[in-house]
Amino acid sequence: MDYTSSELGSVRHELFKCQGVYFAMKRLSVIVVFLIATCCGLSTVRGEGSVSSATEECLGCHATIHPGIVESWKKSQHASTTPARAMAVQGLGRKISAKDVPEELKNVSIGCAECHTLRAKEHKDTFDHNGQDIHVVVTPGDCQSCHVEESQQFDKNLMAHAYGNLVNNDLYQQLMLSINGSPVLDKGRIILKPSNAATDAESCLYCHGTRLQVTGTKARTTDMGEMEFPIISGWPNQGVGRINLDDTRGACTACHPRHDFSIETARKPYVCKECHVGPDVPAFKVYEASKHGNIFSTKQAEWNFKNVPWSVGKDFTAPTCAVCHISLLVDAEGKVVSPRTHEVKNRLPWRIFGLVYAHPHPKEADVTVIRNKDGLPLPTDLEGGFATKFLLNPQERTEAAQAMRASCQQCHAKSWVEGYWERFLNTIEQTNTSTLAATQIMQEIWKRGLATGPGKGGNPFDEFSEKLWSDIWLFYANSIRFASAMGGGGDYGVFADARYHMQKTLQELQDWMEARKPARKQ
Amino acid sequence: MDYTSSELGSVRHELFKCQGVYFAMKRLSVIVVFLIATCCGLSTVRGEGSVSSATEECLGCHATIHPGIVESWKKSQHASTTPARAMAVQGLGRKISAKDVPEELKNVSIGCAECHTLRAKEHKDTFDHNGQDIHVVVTPGDCQSCHVEESQQFDKNLMAHAYGNLVNNDLYQQLMLSINGSPVLDKGRIILKPSNAATDAESCLYCHGTRLQVTGTKARTTDMGEMEFPIISGWPNQGVGRINLDDTRGACTACHPRHDFSIETARKPYVCKECHVGPDVPAFKVYEASKHGNIFSTKQAEWNFKNVPWSVGKDFTAPTCAVCHISLLVDAEGKVVSPRTHEVKNRLPWRIFGLVYAHPHPKEADVTVIRNKDGLPLPTDLEGGFATKFLLNPQERTEAAQAMRASCQQCHAKSWVEGYWERFLNTIEQTNTSTLAATQIMQEIWKRGLATGPGKGGNPFDEFSEKLWSDIWLFYANSIRFASAMGGGGDYGVFADARYHMQKTLQELQDWMEARKPARKQ
Amino acid sequence: MDYTSSELGSVRHELFKCQGVYFAMKRLSVIVVFLIATCCGLSTVRGEGSVSSATEECLGCHATIHPGIVESWKKSQHASTTPARAMAVQGLGRKISAKDVPEELKNVSIGCAECHTLRAKEHKDTFDHNGQDIHVVVTPGDCQSCHVEESQQFDKNLMAHAYGNLVNNDLYQQLMLSINGSPVLDKGRIILKPSNAATDAESCLYCHGTRLQVTGTKARTTDMGEMEFPIISGWPNQGVGRINLDDTRGACTACHPRHDFSIETARKPYVCKECHVGPDVPAFKVYEASKHGNIFSTKQAEWNFKNVPWSVGKDFTAPTCAVCHISLLVDAEGKVVSPRTHEVKNRLPWRIFGLVYAHPHPKEADVTVIRNKDGLPLPTDLEGGFATKFLLNPQERTEAAQAMRASCQQCHAKSWVEGYWERFLNTIEQTNTSTLAATQIMQEIWKRGLATGPGKGGNPFDEFSEKLWSDIWLFYANSIRFASAMGGGGDYGVFADARYHMQKTLQELQDWMEARKPARKQ
Repeated sequence: MDYTSSELGSVRHELFKCQGVYFAMKRLSVIVVFLIATCCGLSTVRGEGSVSSATEECLGCHATIHPGIVESWKKSQHASTTPARAMAVQGLGRKISAKDVPEELKNVSIGCAECHTLRAKEHKDTFDHNGQDIHVVVTPGDCQSCHVEESQQFDKNLMAHAYGNLVNNDLYQQLMLSINGSPVLDKGRIILKPSNAATDAESCLYCHGTRLQVTGTKARTTDMGEMEFPIISGWPNQGVGRINLDDTRGACTACHPRHDFSIETARKPYVCKECHVGPDVPAFKVYEASKHGNIFSTKQAEWNFKNVPWSVGKDFTAPTCAVCHISLLVDAEGKVVSPRTHEVKNRLPWRIFGLVYAHPHPKEADVTVIRNKDGLPLPTDLEGGFATKFLLNPQERTEAAQAMRASCQQCHAKSWVEGYWERFLNTIEQTNTSTLAATQIMQEIWKRGLATGPGKGGNPFDEFSEKLWSDIWLFYANSIRFASAMGGGGDYGVFADARYHMQKTLQELQDWMEARKPARKQ
Repeated sequence: MDYTSSELGSVRHELFKCQGVYFAMKRLSVIVVFLIATCCGLSTVRGEGSVSSATEECLGCHATIHPGIVESWKKSQHASTTPARAMAVQGLGRKISAKDVPEELKNVSIGCAECHTLRAKEHKDTFDHNGQDIHVVVTPGDCQSCHVEESQQFDKNLMAHAYGNLVNNDLYQQLMLSINGSPVLDKGRIILKPSNAATDAESCLYCHGTRLQVTGTKARTTDMGEMEFPIISGWPNQGVGRINLDDTRGACTACHPRHDFSIETARKPYVCKECHVGPDVPAFKVYEASKHGNIFSTKQAEWNFKNVPWSVGKDFTAPTCAVCHISLLVDAEGKVVSPRTHEVKNRLPWRIFGLVYAHPHPKEADVTVIRNKDGLPLPTDLEGGFATKFLLNPQERTEAAQAMRASCQQCHAKSWVEGYWERFLNTIEQTNTSTLAATQIMQEIWKRGLATGPGKGGNPFDEFSEKLWSDIWLFYANSIRFASAMGGGGDYGVFADARYHMQKTLQELQDWMEARKPARKQ
Repeated sequence: MDYTSSELGSVRHELFKCQGVYFAMKRLSVIVVFLIATCCGLSTVRGEGSVSSATEECLGCHATIHPGIVESWKKSQHASTTPARAMAVQGLGRKISAKDVPEELKNVSIGCAECHTLRAKEHKDTFDHNGQDIHVVVTPGDCQSCHVEESQQFDKNLMAHAYGNLVNNDLYQQLMLSINGSPVLDKGRIILKPSNAATDAESCLYCHGTRLQVTGTKARTTDMGEMEFPIISGWPNQGVGRINLDDTRGACTACHPRHDFSIETARKPYVCKECHVGPDVPAFKVYEASKHGNIFSTKQAEWNFKNVPWSVGKDFTAPTCAVCHISLLVDAEGKVVSPRTHEVKNRLPWRIFGLVYAHPHPKEADVTVIRNKDGLPLPTDLEGGFATKFLLNPQERTEAAQAMRASCQQCHAKSWVEGYWERFLNTIEQTNTSTLAATQIMQEIWKRGLATGPGKGGNPFDEFSEKLWSDIWLFYANSIRFASAMGGGGDYGVFADARYHMQKTLQELQDWMEARKPARKQ
């Protein structure tokens, strides 16, 4: 006889039901104990139990005014437990890293008031709202009260520094102007006027984060009468490197969106797509087309995205972004495979997002200090040489590679992983070679005066030929490297913003130059 | 003690089972009542109950010939209820807007014959099929018998006029020719011969809708012997603006595909993708990468896509396309947040799909009447001025914006929504500024005779430099605006068909011009 | 009264529970029988029952070392049944096509050892591993032991020959060089050095498959002490045309990924995306945006992806890739609609992936034998004429079309399918016309010496103008045809790598030529 899984399933279902009937009496005694505990739990879920009186007051109005976020919160872990109970969990299942939390938070659900009144004096957007000192923007500084390790790790992450790393780098500011500037014709030629803050907030700073500032207050008529609210420039924004009103960096909500802050959301790849869809960083696209992504898309409904720790094979059978980069993983016996980290670079030996070339990962999250041999704020020089003293050394790279490969090896034999890794290193080298060819042509174009390069005070990114050059390293070389790192190839290694296009654009750049002015020797 | 959600879940499961055992006796009396009702319901679901004899006859053959659509229909609400029962529902839960329906439809399931024989005399494709007067193409005119408000609203929607708005506009016809024309070499140069109907049906008219026409009949050999069927040119097509054989406009099946006509399909974003994937209207791509889309992708399995009315927060915790544009929404207390509308422009103050510039939304769905100040059939002139008398005035725009923002405010504070909206308006202005720069260069190119523009009787869309110009407003400016409207930015605001590419193409256009002929002053 | 589906659902749930209570006693006798059988089944699922002692030994270490694949396998059909039981299934539900299998496989689960020790002498990568003769790479030659028909069919599939068809074709090798070559500047101009094996493995051969070779052995320190493992060049790779170490072709794991080999994975479209995301073969993108894809995305959670045979309408209500191209389909009465085939071309009359033009499908899977009238290894000549003797004749095309259309007709009337098909044939013709125009310009460019064409020994794919030409047929014409074949149009027929871009690039190519050298007559 052959049992298909669905036959088996229905038999098991029958079995379960019968057991339910016959053993129900015996179970009852056990269950009564659970029931009492559960009642507390269930009522908490419904927001009736350990909700603080301050939060009750918030809910009084906001449950009606903002049902979307209130209902979302009701489904959250924050609503259904308390820090005290979370701290009672020992071992790898513990989700709260603080050893202790402020006394007033311990035995209440983490509701509206708990976060939005925390550290009131440190937030410049704190305002009086029905007698409570509320701040609009909750920050990693607040989350840190319970999630201290994660906050501290995150602050050492490149992402937390995404605002400063972009805005405080003169060269990147020229790139930003070449993208966001407002084009107007002046004597028949395009000139770029500086972009305004709203434009920057919708482009680069959408992901990098804005700098928030309180610029005044505004009275609004509400159901409760007229009320004053702070005006915050740069708001709204959920960028990973946001500069907050308590001077902290980042937005936990970039990956843990409001107000259920669900671990499932952070573990599924979708939330990463917002900033990593490409073509500059096509991580999500590459992942979705990879075998890993294929399996995730097919099988995710059968997986468990909530278990902590996260068990390879049992909870999932192919990695998501979080598996390789962030999550605490255990094997079938519960042994730690990878410790949790919010300092993503712990598992990253190379930075494959080329600036201009791919290079060993920076040692520090604040990369504004980096200078290449020519004194430019870039991790490589224009010939591809690394600004080594700011970058991971070979030993550090080996450690980071091992940290990353620990998860690979849960499913793949060492020979597989090594073969894969060798190709990845080859791809870094080869794409850097292609970038070098492109840069040499670009330099020749600048030399011949066909475009105004940095040597003559020009913005190196704003002319047509310069955009062809940046296409090559910013889109095509990156696509090829992400495909190599995350899937091994396929269309994102060949035809989808990859090798085909890199070669085409190289030819176009050369062709453009040659059509305009013959080489000196001719 | 700490209860994880899965522990809680299993406890609740135990609890449920025990209750099931002990209270089963008491419930039985209640259940018996339900059972009787359910039996009717269930049998209807199985297509055994209130199926009309005409439909029974259809099913006799078609259940075997076309199991795909018959089984799909069996799972539908149409199969499991009757208009009479649907009309008995009072209040917001009512799904049928007709106050009364034809007597013969009232007490039967809505099956094959109900729709395909309705209004037989008005359909030019009605033919005798085993003694029934069947028409092939069911239209909004048929659906209107039960769904009168939706049909009437839809007819005032831009989409319903998508065929005429494209085909009856001389300028858009030139754009269409420049895309669909058949290129052949004549004396070594490309000329475009007019496209044939099949090509048009597979390109622009696939979404805009074809004009259906009965051109004859054809005999086919079937299992039932030889039968005559109408030949319909333009068929198949499910475009939103299809011109039907009863002279109605549109295809409800564009969004409510056959034959389950599931509300779930219309409420999930996927069905919108067919026509709105871009790069001209990249709504789906932008949505999927937005935080809203991230949350939808992650959480949709937990949401309820069938409840009517649709409760913000309870049924879903992030919007889909339908939430913002169409659906009837209520808050946690059941109060209406947004009324249902199939006249999508009710919630749209601006048309961000640039023709050539973004502009206030047209007042009327038939936009062929619009003339700009130069007499061209465009909502803006080439300098960006609006053809104001055909477009929403500021007061009407404010009302439409409020209708849209009603849904935003279910999850976001007013200051959030206002900050977001200000950026959106800035983006409209800025992208129009960029389009102006591009258009000024294009006009200079036409002036210099480097391309044959409309002033000299040329098609303004068919040459290479003209395509560079249309790339700017049709793809890049639109992407930037959709990213602004629907997500706030991210890659679709910068690197994915957005600001980077707009600037690059502007430079390319200028570069192209300057390489061909020096400016007059030089 | 109106019953919404959720009300009905809850009533049915109540009904079920009550029945469970009251009929549990009666069922018990039946269930006991099932229980005994189930116990075997369940224990097998847990890997306790019929697991061979060799596999038990593997699991002893690998359950800990590689929990990802071991847990994945535990959830597989391979783990939960045996060939003997699979062979006991009669009729269409049978999943094993072998009439008999090796005796030692019959009554055990198909675990690690069963596949990785099979046909040990035929695999060059067989090595001694704890006393067992293990080979690393399991091949179609191994899978064939149980799945003989599928393996044989697959071997006649174009995909199985994907390696040789690319690598043994001189012209395609030039295309490959133009994409993968390493660009360096030589006297100021780009020259392409041959790519290395790692680059090829990450680009073209990622999907086409690598040629595996054992190049030595390597000692590794493991928990079990030092062990020797083979070094395999070209590994890892799961390309469909991989050349294996037992001289077989292909990798079943391309579509049935390790180690659950789930039929669900092969039936959902995601796994196809890895190689068919485009822009060269944008099948997945087109599908996802098609009505079929919209419905799949919306409804898949309600479908059954495991039933064999697969029942149209009952198990699914819109096709996935497998439905149209591969799967065994039955109608509502269990009658075969389409027989299963792993020789995909059985249902393909045309090859719409243009080389250079779309053309009737090749007769044989090994296409290296094809020569066009000019002696080039292409299925068409440069004027679009077909190398007819190597391609399906009209009669064969009709048969293949009927095989494909059999599935269409499960949901669509014949007039629909015919209208659809006519447009598809028109699109093949029209895109070939456009490709002809592009090729004529390209030939003129070669003639004028503006690029070095094949007539002068040049690589026809490596210069900028040549890449413009290949964009037209490789990306845009293909996109248009895939949109036509798989969805009927929408954005992939117009603005997404389609007609708009084809026309733009045609103009660019002409423009490029004219800017460089005037036509002879001028």
